[in-house]
Amino acid sequence: MSLSTSLFAGVAAGLMLTAAAGASAGPMIGFTPQGAATEQALESRFDQALSGEEMKGWLETMSSEPNHVGSPHDKANAELMLAKFKSWGWDARIETFDILYPTPIAEKLELLGSRPFTAALHETPVEGDRTSGKTATALPPYVAYQGDGDVTADIVYVNYGMPEDYKALERLGVSVKGKIVLARYGAGWRGLKPQLAEEHGAAGCLIFSDPADDGYATDDVWPKGGQRPPQGVQRGSVQKMMIYAGDPLTPGVGATKDAKRLTRETAQTILHIPALPISYADAQPFLEAMGGPLAPRNFRGALPITYRVGGAGAASAHLLVKSDWSLKPIYDVIAVMKGKEYPDQWVVRGNHHDGWVFGATDPLSGNVVLMEEAKAIGALARTGWRPKRTLVYASWDAEEPGLIGSTEWAEAHADELQKKAVAYINSDSNDRGYLGAEGSHSLQTLMNQVAGDVPDPETGVSVAQRQRALAEVEGARPGAREDVKLVARIAAEGGELPLAPLGSGSDYSAFIQHLGVASINLGFGGEGEMGGVYHSIYDSYDHYLRYGDPTFRYEVALAQTAGRVMLRLADADAPPMRLQPVSAGVAHYLKEVKQLVEKTKTEDAQLSALIASKAYSLADDPTHPTQPPQAEAPVVALDFAALDAASERLSRATAAFDTAYSAALGHLSRKQQAALEPVMSGLEQALTAPEGLPGRPWFHHMIYAPGMLTGYGAKTLPGVREAIESRRWSEAQTYIAVVARTLDGYSDRLEKTVVSLKAQ
Amino acid sequence: MSLSTSLFAGVAAGLMLTAAAGASAGPMIGFTPQGAATEQALESRFDQALSGEEMKGWLETMSSEPNHVGSPHDKANAELMLAKFKSWGWDARIETFDILYPTPIAEKLELLGSRPFTAALHETPVEGDRTSGKTATALPPYVAYQGDGDVTADIVYVNYGMPEDYKALERLGVSVKGKIVLARYGAGWRGLKPQLAEEHGAAGCLIFSDPADDGYATDDVWPKGGQRPPQGVQRGSVQKMMIYAGDPLTPGVGATKDAKRLTRETAQTILHIPALPISYADAQPFLEAMGGPLAPRNFRGALPITYRVGGAGAASAHLLVKSDWSLKPIYDVIAVMKGKEYPDQWVVRGNHHDGWVFGATDPLSGNVVLMEEAKAIGALARTGWRPKRTLVYASWDAEEPGLIGSTEWAEAHADELQKKAVAYINSDSNDRGYLGAEGSHSLQTLMNQVAGDVPDPETGVSVAQRQRALAEVEGARPGAREDVKLVARIAAEGGELPLAPLGSGSDYSAFIQHLGVASINLGFGGEGEMGGVYHSIYDSYDHYLRYGDPTFRYEVALAQTAGRVMLRLADADAPPMRLQPVSAGVAHYLKEVKQLVEKTKTEDAQLSALIASKAYSLADDPTHPTQPPQAEAPVVALDFAALDAASERLSRATAAFDTAYSAALGHLSRKQQAALEPVMSGLEQALTAPEGLPGRPWFHHMIYAPGMLTGYGAKTLPGVREAIESRRWSEAQTYIAVVARTLDGYSDRLEKTVVSLKAQ
Repeated sequence: MSLSTSLFAGVAAGLMLTAAAGASAGPMIGFTPQGAATEQALESRFDQALSGEEMKGWLETMSSEPNHVGSPHDKANAELMLAKFKSWGWDARIETFDILYPTPIAEKLELLGSRPFTAALHETPVEGDRTSGKTATALPPYVAYQGDGDVTADIVYVNYGMPEDYKALERLGVSVKGKIVLARYGAGWRGLKPQLAEEHGAAGCLIFSDPADDGYATDDVWPKGGQRPPQGVQRGSVQKMMIYAGDPLTPGVGATKDAKRLTRETAQTILHIPALPISYADAQPFLEAMGGPLAPRNFRGALPITYRVGGAGAASAHLLVKSDWSLKPIYDVIAVMKGKEYPDQWVVRGNHHDGWVFGATDPLSGNVVLMEEAKAIGALARTGWRPKRTLVYASWDAEEPGLIGSTEWAEAHADELQKKAVAYINSDSNDRGYLGAEGSHSLQTLMNQVAGDVPDPETGVSVAQRQRALAEVEGARPGAREDVKLVARIAAEGGELPLAPLGSGSDYSAFIQHLGVASINLGFGGEGEMGGVYHSIYDSYDHYLRYGDPTFRYEVALAQTAGRVMLRLADADAPPMRLQPVSAGVAHYLKEVKQLVEKTKTEDAQLSALIASKAYSLADDPTHPTQPPQAEAPVVALDFAALDAASERLSRATAAFDTAYSAALGHLSRKQQAALEPVMSGLEQALTAPEGLPGRPWFHHMIYAPGMLTGYGAKTLPGVREAIESRRWSEAQTYIAVVARTLDGYSDRLEKTVVSLKAQ
Repeated sequence: MSLSTSLFAGVAAGLMLTAAAGASAGPMIGFTPQGAATEQALESRFDQALSGEEMKGWLETMSSEPNHVGSPHDKANAELMLAKFKSWGWDARIETFDILYPTPIAEKLELLGSRPFTAALHETPVEGDRTSGKTATALPPYVAYQGDGDVTADIVYVNYGMPEDYKALERLGVSVKGKIVLARYGAGWRGLKPQLAEEHGAAGCLIFSDPADDGYATDDVWPKGGQRPPQGVQRGSVQKMMIYAGDPLTPGVGATKDAKRLTRETAQTILHIPALPISYADAQPFLEAMGGPLAPRNFRGALPITYRVGGAGAASAHLLVKSDWSLKPIYDVIAVMKGKEYPDQWVVRGNHHDGWVFGATDPLSGNVVLMEEAKAIGALARTGWRPKRTLVYASWDAEEPGLIGSTEWAEAHADELQKKAVAYINSDSNDRGYLGAEGSHSLQTLMNQVAGDVPDPETGVSVAQRQRALAEVEGARPGAREDVKLVARIAAEGGELPLAPLGSGSDYSAFIQHLGVASINLGFGGEGEMGGVYHSIYDSYDHYLRYGDPTFRYEVALAQTAGRVMLRLADADAPPMRLQPVSAGVAHYLKEVKQLVEKTKTEDAQLSALIASKAYSLADDPTHPTQPPQAEAPVVALDFAALDAASERLSRATAAFDTAYSAALGHLSRKQQAALEPVMSGLEQALTAPEGLPGRPWFHHMIYAPGMLTGYGAKTLPGVREAIESRRWSEAQTYIAVVARTLDGYSDRLEKTVVSLKAQ
């Protein structure tokens, strides 16, 4: 479900490494010189087996019919892949789960009053998009896991529907209690919009795509250009995935036939109010009818109207949503190639295959790359090569409704994965542009080296060099954020490009955040025009051919990139991990959360002063009255000593480990090496805590999590950072201790490993 | 011609004073305690004579017909005022000049090609705006002093048409050579748009009002709301007023009957290419037809289209403008009340009376305030009071085409004014909101004290307190600029609010910048909705009643403010000037220009590095090609030593002067005081240099000027700053010396005065 643009933007938004963390040049990580030479030869042969034309053919077939969860074509795609994997020599099977997946039965949206209007809720066929008329088996636009209902109420326009938007509305004296909110897509994850609306007492929620964000304001619209046409709708899930991912009825366990299930009513991740996504053609009459205060400047989109926030009784709407809430079967395709040296060390690769309608870009552009890699690896295997470690290739179902196929599989095989999984490598949508890579910092050096070895199709330099060029240009823009400038500086100085931290939005979530398996998410993007057809019927093969990756060269580049990561993880003489980026990341995040406390204090003091001096009320225009912001309860002092100490110990431990490990490489006894393997695969788990995050125990990772109020966007040191952001000071103090304890456990493990390495 | 909003915004954008410059509390500046008590009583009586109802009546009458230069109603308004001034006891007369004032005879604008369209170039009557149908004697929308012509060419959209927009177009590979440019209003002064277009080789220029800037995106449009309707057009002058203001044919001298005149061809301030202002209804078909590259993000307005920059031959236009270039008479109304103690010390007050059509807000809202002040002062005079110094009240004609009435008068009376004028106090448009004050820093303490004594009609606190509240709120906004935060800090700490420096855009220009007469520009604004009818037929009495100042209480407040400034300047026991704000201002501006050099070096280095690393070309999307920016010639080191020394000497001299002057106040011998008067009135002239600014010798002031590339916006230390901005390093070095010499002359004068004050 990721938008690939968010992937490449992640390069700049993510972890900031100091130059001291070291450059990426040097010998191939995890390999002896002889091993590296063999690996390079293998990768050349792998590259030669890759074919853009082949992927193009699969993409056309697999996106030829609607392929959402439960559709005949979704199952057909799984069966097609099963046959292919088998034909390429993989040990393949389909694993089935039964999940709660609501599908709409009835939808209605009407504007009442003097200028009545009934929303079309329908995406029409357009010329030049051959599948856009083949929607007989498609579902109408909807958001999955909204609450169903039949409500009539006044409408309030809530901008992006994020917490700061509700603060702005409060200052305007507008409440959403009992109202239907109209939110626009953007700024935060879709699911937060109805969730926050519900928390503020709203009775219903509409979400529309404003042309400012992905419509005509950004470029010509489909089919003239690539962007969202007036009738285009963004579907999507609104399941509360930041509480737990996967089937809402089976948190923490696989949704097998006989799994113990919650009821729909007791599931924590389903909303209670009805919600619908709509097009801007459908939204405009509602916005035009809206009275009430003038919308604040940042609420204004690109429709040719005066945006107002409503709430004055001017515009009233009737919203009805009714769904079929039965269980549906899903089909994960799992293909295994056993490792010849360490069969119990698994390197897992995944991409989902279900879409919202035709899903050409999302997810099939990534899925056919995964298939192509599997085909090429199969071809290598036919020549006699076998991976040292076991390769697992998985094409997940039901990612769109809530990362369900991957999560149920990860939950069903949790024990085995925690014992065996070395890493999980994910992809999703892929199009033209820059490599985006997010993930565990232990894999950062590997990732930088791989990016340095893959040529960029448009420029001929490595994709790493192109990432650096982009980082430098972004950092030089007037008004660039400090973190963007920092990455630019790292890029200019030739340091390792930081991996952005993983939030959510694709299938890595269960692996990294629930199980503690080191993960990377990969994809190219930033030059295609995919945002405007995202999750609509126009995310089609024809659109992808014009605006995704017309030459399929970035499809090949992704196969080269993800394939190299897989092959190096599988064949390395010792697991290709370097750990100083982990401690550098933690130190940076710790600095950030401490700065956040100071910033909060400063802003509080300023706000209190302005409230005391009555500046807000005196500066206010009485004909457009605005309430002063509310003063905040004072910041409670936090003691960071334990975390400071743990972070410093971690820095020493990673430095000692990296030195000892690279010195030992090539001289390890067989016994030592065999003993190292599970240590390495379990290492990321040492960054998890059994109690999980506050209010969401499913999330075990203490360094990265999707934000409770960002949805997809990552929060680092989430237990501490989110508590500070929400002013839950005692929780922050508690999690300072939890994170410190977790880091100490990690350091402890490293220190013991160093002793055993030196004892060689 | 000022937009009142720019006035109040000036509070935040202007001079930054350190807290050390001193607070404004304390005794009334320039008055002994007894004098202050008398003055306060006088001001109470002045206030009591003010009537909003009276101003309302005059406003209705004076805005009832088109009153542009040369119209019968413009002359009638002058005659009405002459009669009023006389009836109030003033010695009044009309001074006439003959100026070049082009008026359109023929205009045509057509879109050629497959979707032909003829622009309406006409503003239609609307319901609820009673004068909007009374346009028989109005001129069609046009911009004065464009070049006339008849051209057919492709169109290029140049955003705001500012220098950085041309840089962006160059990077897109789009040239305007031989093309008609379409620019939108905003970001820089109107006249720069055709001027820069001409300098870039364009054949014609259209300027439209994008709804993003003052149309429906900002609020409902007239007559439903106050903002610009689709057919509304902003007229205006495009005369190059930053070369010299006033009649283009008589620079530096009054445009009297027998003045020596340039020809139209030799006048430096008239453009050569035809230009027309148009509405967004007229602009949209041209923008829709435009092909070529996608417009950069900051080029995008609020029309419901995809903005492109054109240049690809997709859209071609025919533009015709023909004007009558004859001389027209103008009518300045001058009213004098002779001072009883220092008749040769003049305190001058001005506002213009000509509008573009009905001119209710601009200028009549300010002009009726000036009339009301004169009436109230007349009433005081009838009770036996007389000002100590001479009061001159002037209502200027022909401000709109180029500050002409005030400039010709100032040039015609230059010698006398330089001998006698203590200060010039200007106003223009006025509406609801916050007091904006710009001007000479020697008058800053006076201005702060007056603002502290006038009650704000909406809140009851002083207008100064409301200014502070606004400054604090603006400074607390996320992302507030550093200078805005600095003013907020000063406001919060109770320091004197800095006067913003004077640029251009109203009648103070000839006084401060040409003659060196200390000046202030005053007006309320920021809460009215005047921007959307600015310079259109909808700037009407009906609009003002709804969106300007419906209760006329801000009209009264302006009369109270400007009246107090006039009365205190006229009646002070010694001229009410405090000079440490002057040296603090200079020191701050000097710091800024030095920082500008450093910033330029840093940016150059970054740009060179990015060009060297090929970052721009590697990061570029080949399907939307953009050229890398050009490297700049290296910064040449500047020696600021002379200016540093002059600035430090100035700080010492002003401190010594302020101390000696306030100590001496009340103890001055009559002879001493009489000797002081001309010193004080001439003091601001010591900040001028006879050679004027580079390329524009008419501008003598070395501390403030309108920017060559901002038009209205002020540049401080303009000779140095603009040379640095334009990388004319040797010119910058030359002007460092000129400014240093000028400041030394000022310090010299102060030091001598201190000696004479101490010798008492």
